[in-house]
Amino acid sequence: MVDKALGGAGLRGQVAGQTALCTVGKTGSGLTYYGYDIAELAEKVTFEEVAYLLAHGELPNASQLADYKARLKGMRGLPSALKDVLERIPADAHPMDVMRTGCSMLGNLEPELSFADADKAIERMIAVFPSILLYWYRFSHDGVRIETETDDDSVGAHFLHLLHDKAPSELHTAVMNTSLILYAEHEFNASTFTARVCASTLSDIHSCVTGAIGSLRGPLHGGANEAAMELIEGLQSPEHAEETLMEMLARKDKIMGFGHAIYRESDPRNNIIKAWSEKLAAEYGDTRLYDVSVRCEEVMWREKKLFPNADFFHASAYHFMGIPTKLFTPIFVMSRVTGWTAHVKEQRANNRIIRPSAEYTGPEARPVPALADR
Amino acid sequence: MVDKALGGAGLRGQVAGQTALCTVGKTGSGLTYYGYDIAELAEKVTFEEVAYLLAHGELPNASQLADYKARLKGMRGLPSALKDVLERIPADAHPMDVMRTGCSMLGNLEPELSFADADKAIERMIAVFPSILLYWYRFSHDGVRIETETDDDSVGAHFLHLLHDKAPSELHTAVMNTSLILYAEHEFNASTFTARVCASTLSDIHSCVTGAIGSLRGPLHGGANEAAMELIEGLQSPEHAEETLMEMLARKDKIMGFGHAIYRESDPRNNIIKAWSEKLAAEYGDTRLYDVSVRCEEVMWREKKLFPNADFFHASAYHFMGIPTKLFTPIFVMSRVTGWTAHVKEQRANNRIIRPSAEYTGPEARPVPALADR
Repeated sequence: MVDKALGGAGLRGQVAGQTALCTVGKTGSGLTYYGYDIAELAEKVTFEEVAYLLAHGELPNASQLADYKARLKGMRGLPSALKDVLERIPADAHPMDVMRTGCSMLGNLEPELSFADADKAIERMIAVFPSILLYWYRFSHDGVRIETETDDDSVGAHFLHLLHDKAPSELHTAVMNTSLILYAEHEFNASTFTARVCASTLSDIHSCVTGAIGSLRGPLHGGANEAAMELIEGLQSPEHAEETLMEMLARKDKIMGFGHAIYRESDPRNNIIKAWSEKLAAEYGDTRLYDVSVRCEEVMWREKKLFPNADFFHASAYHFMGIPTKLFTPIFVMSRVTGWTAHVKEQRANNRIIRPSAEYTGPEARPVPALADR
Repeated sequence: MVDKALGGAGLRGQVAGQTALCTVGKTGSGLTYYGYDIAELAEKVTFEEVAYLLAHGELPNASQLADYKARLKGMRGLPSALKDVLERIPADAHPMDVMRTGCSMLGNLEPELSFADADKAIERMIAVFPSILLYWYRFSHDGVRIETETDDDSVGAHFLHLLHDKAPSELHTAVMNTSLILYAEHEFNASTFTARVCASTLSDIHSCVTGAIGSLRGPLHGGANEAAMELIEGLQSPEHAEETLMEMLARKDKIMGFGHAIYRESDPRNNIIKAWSEKLAAEYGDTRLYDVSVRCEEVMWREKKLFPNADFFHASAYHFMGIPTKLFTPIFVMSRVTGWTAHVKEQRANNRIIRPSAEYTGPEARPVPALADR
C-alpha cells in the first residue's frame, strides 16, 4: 500500500500513530495535556504536577506530589565522570550539543537496563538537566565548578539558582514554572517524533532523548525563541520596530516567532507568556523589549494575519530574568523531556517499528564500470 | 488531510519522502545503491568507493578515489578531549552508547558550522568511528591507550588492526570490506529515518548521526547479528541446531536473523556474506559455527519459509575474525554512517520539516481539580 500522493511533504496531515497525551489545535487554537487545557494548567498547577501528569496520565494528589518533588530534589547531583566530560566541552560549543552529549553520557553511567527502570531514568533526566547545562556553562564561562545540589523547591528555581548563584525571586520562579508548563508537550512535533521512531526500535530511553535533543536543536524547530530575541534586541522603540518589520516584510524576510505549522488562529500559549513578560518588564524597570514585542505583534497581524507563537514573548521574558540567549533552547529541553519520555512510554506500550517507504527517484539499474573506465 | 486508516502501524508502506540513493526489494529481492546492484558492488569495488558513491552520487575515478582514501587515512586521530571522554566510559557500557556519545562529543569539538562543511564532517566520521570504538574498548578492557592513526589502506583493515593490535590478513580485510558495503545503505529504515527527521529541522549532521546511532541500538533494528551470535554459539552440531530450532519454533520463540520487513523472497546480502563465512570457517579450522548456521537456514526455510537476512551469517563471519560479539552493532554504525549522512544531504536539498499528525485517544476535555480534591 504505497500512496505516492502523500509523499515528500514532511508527512503533514498523515497519522503516524495514536496518542492520549495531547491535542494540538483541535478547535483551531487549543492545546490540552491529557484533556486539561493549557491555560488552566498554567494558572493552577506547577510544572512538577504537569511532569507527573505526563508520566502517569493523572495529576498527582498531595502525597504523590510531595514524594515526586522530594525524589527530583534528591537527583540533582552530577556523577564525577559526567562533570569531567562537561569540563572538556569548549565555551563556544552550541549549548544544545552540550545537552545532547550530557544526556548521552548519562546513558553510559546510569543506563536504563530494563523498561521497568523508565520512570526512574525519566525523573533523573528532569532533575539533572539543569545541572548538566549550568555546570558546563558556569565552568566554561566563569571558570567555577558549581555545586548543583540546591534546596530549591522546583525545577525552574533550581535552574535560575544555578545560573545566577542565588535563589530566584517569587516572580521569576513563577514565570519559569509557567514557561516549563507551556513547553512540556506538543504531540508529534519533529523532536517528539524522533523520540518515537527511536523508541520503536525498542532502544533505551537515553537514546530516545538524545536523538530528540538533536532534532530540537534545528533552527526550524527549537531555535525560534533565540531568533526572536535576535530580532527584538535590535529594536530601539515601537516606531523602530514598525519600520524594521515593514522593511523585512517588503524584502520577504522570514520573521521568527510568528505563525505555526498546526495552529491557524492563534497559539494558546502566547497570551500566557505575554502577560508574564509584561509583569517582568515592569519589575525590570525598562519596558523596551516588551513594548517593541507588542508592536511586532500588531504589525504582523495587521500586515500578514500572523500571530505570535509560544516562542515570541518568551524571548523578552527570558531576557528580563537575565537568561543568556543561547540558553533559551536548552530550557525547552528541560521542559520537553517530560513530553518526549511520555511519548516513549506510549510508543513502547503499543509498538510497531516505524519504517516508512520512499519514492525512488534515482538512476535506473546500471552495471558497475571498472575503475579505469570512470 | 488526515487519513485515519493509515494510522498506528509504523508508517508501513507510507511514502515519507523521495530518495535517489537506494532501492530495497523492488523486484522482491534486490538492493541497489544509486542503481548499482549490491552483489556487483560487493564483488567489484571497495567500501571506500561505495562511501564515495553514497556521498557524491557517482563512483570515483582512480584519482578521486586516491584523494578520498588519503583524506580518510589522515583523519583517524582522536582529539585529546574526546580521548578523555572515552576514558570515562565504563567497561560495561553498551558499545552503542559509546558510539552515540563519541559522535555527540565530536560534534562539540569539530562542529559542522555550515552545511558547506557537511562532506568534511562526513569523511571525518567515517574515518574516526573505528578509532572512537576501539580507543574506548582497548582502554576499558585492556587498560591500554592505543595509537589510532594507522597506515592501513581501508576502514575495515583499520578497524581490525586497532582491535587485534596487528595488521589483518588479506582474507579478513576482504571480508570487512564486503561487510561494510552490505550494511552501508538501506533506504528509509528506522535509523535512517531518524536521521532524516532530525535533518528536516535543519539541525547539524552530528545531531542526525547521533540520533541514528540511538535508533540502530534498538534490538528490533541493529542488534540482530548479536542476537544471531547468541543463538548459534550455543549450538554444538547441525543435529543440535535442528533440535534446538524445532523446540524454539514449537514454543513460538522469536528467532533473530531471519525474515525481513521489506524483502519477501530472500535478502540479497545473505548469499554474499554466507560465502565469506564459509571461507573464514575453513581458515579458522573449526567449521562448527558455519555448519550450524547452514542447518538453521535449512530448518527455517523448511518449517517457516523464512530466509536468513544480512545479519545471520554475519554472526559467524565476525566471530571467525575474532570480533567480540558486543562490537557487532558498532561495525554496522561504521558502515551505515555513509548511508545516514547521504540521506541527511538529500533531505537538506529538498526539505520540509517532518511533522506528522497523531490520532487522539486520550480523555475528553476536563477541568483541573484542586490538589485537595485529587
